[in-house]
Amino acid sequence: MRYVLKIAYDGTHFAGWQRQKNAVSVQEVLEEAVKAALGVEVKTTASGRTDAGVHAAGQVCHFDAELSVPPEKMPDCLNRYLPDSVRVLDGFGADESFDSNRSAKRKTYCYTLYESAREMPLLERFAVRVETLACKEKLKAVASLMEGEHDFKAFCASGSSVITTVRTVYEVRIEEGERYGCRVVKIFVTGNGFLYNMVRTMVGELLDLSQEKRTKESLLAAFETGRRELLGKTMPAKGLTLMQVVYGVDG
Amino acid sequence: MRYVLKIAYDGTHFAGWQRQKNAVSVQEVLEEAVKAALGVEVKTTASGRTDAGVHAAGQVCHFDAELSVPPEKMPDCLNRYLPDSVRVLDGFGADESFDSNRSAKRKTYCYTLYESAREMPLLERFAVRVETLACKEKLKAVASLMEGEHDFKAFCASGSSVITTVRTVYEVRIEEGERYGCRVVKIFVTGNGFLYNMVRTMVGELLDLSQEKRTKESLLAAFETGRRELLGKTMPAKGLTLMQVVYGVDG
Repeated sequence: MRYVLKIAYDGTHFAGWQRQKNAVSVQEVLEEAVKAALGVEVKTTASGRTDAGVHAAGQVCHFDAELSVPPEKMPDCLNRYLPDSVRVLDGFGADESFDSNRSAKRKTYCYTLYESAREMPLLERFAVRVETLACKEKLKAVASLMEGEHDFKAFCASGSSVITTVRTVYEVRIEEGERYGCRVVKIFVTGNGFLYNMVRTMVGELLDLSQEKRTKESLLAAFETGRRELLGKTMPAKGLTLMQVVYGVDG
Repeated sequence: MRYVLKIAYDGTHFAGWQRQKNAVSVQEVLEEAVKAALGVEVKTTASGRTDAGVHAAGQVCHFDAELSVPPEKMPDCLNRYLPDSVRVLDGFGADESFDSNRSAKRKTYCYTLYESAREMPLLERFAVRVETLACKEKLKAVASLMEGEHDFKAFCASGSSVITTVRTVYEVRIEEGERYGCRVVKIFVTGNGFLYNMVRTMVGELLDLSQEKRTKESLLAAFETGRRELLGKTMPAKGLTLMQVVYGVDG
């Protein structure tokens, strides 16, 4: 029996999704909770690894086990053994053709920025402060340059091994609001897959483009050449949240 | 010279504003920062004491000292000595007729609720979960019952000594939004002053009234008799944030 879980976590104090030596990961506390609650050792597979400090509102993972507990009981069953920073939101059953990672058709990440001269302690946990932020229209215009199918090699941290660095970004949506007297901008990025550090590098580049620190031409050159140094900085992990993973029927 | 500071804090790990034995308060870390940065021991007075676990986006306090540092330099000066959870946002000078507490004309608090079957780790720090929440119109209707001048004795935790328990609530405003797939409701309460636990008891009563667990008549009886047992529960501290303090010219 394949159990599929939808989970949320505050990534602040985790070394990311994946098990690490000498650091606590979400995968570890989840697998420990399964062991404590159900008495079985399982290996979980997630839709993708989130990095140290990255949050999730809708991560998806699965594991295989022969259990008498129905999948929909997994939240009640596991949450009592999880730290407050991790919660199982939902449980489903699936057959073995479903794979949390390989069956994912699209994912949405959200990066949260706020504009303020000073740090605002009530926002710092899940958002990153910037001194000045371009208007929504300007942000939208530069965001649209990143939509579509591109070779995102230049946006990818070195050292990652993937077959292809071509990805399709379906949408980069900008939402604007106000919290605690600060202007808050959320950047929602939806794509068919993401390279290591890709969203954080996209947001850094988006900020630079919106402030005209770099040009559309240099972005196009980065797509063409794959050279990381043509782009701006990688933004901090804490502003990033994995919002949703969407699965298709053809596995 | 009287220095006036606007400060924000994540109250999660504080024993409230006021200095305590055996527990860390916001007042203590702020006074320690003044000592470390400026070499003087001061006593700060705030617009009001926030309780253990209550947050602030716009608390105001003042202290007296003879210093060469201009008030507007206080944020840069003090923030490097404060924990990340506390920030000085602004600094002003005032004469001795100004008192952060006694000169306050009105305050606004915000209480944040979210509707979800499960805890959402990304909301839990600053908001309180409820299983079901009435529609905005219903919440508005019951909120309006608390507006105006009333004797809020029944809303006040026992043991507090105040001259009068009559307060004027200028407005109870309901804002609704969505975060991480959860419906989020913010209740902004503006008044000329608040008793100990008053906002948290108002929100508990507001929820009970909106779910028809209690009636308008029992609320009116609570105003008339001052009996605490006629009201619902006191809501948890973590959902409450002191948003703004407004001062008048006549001290």
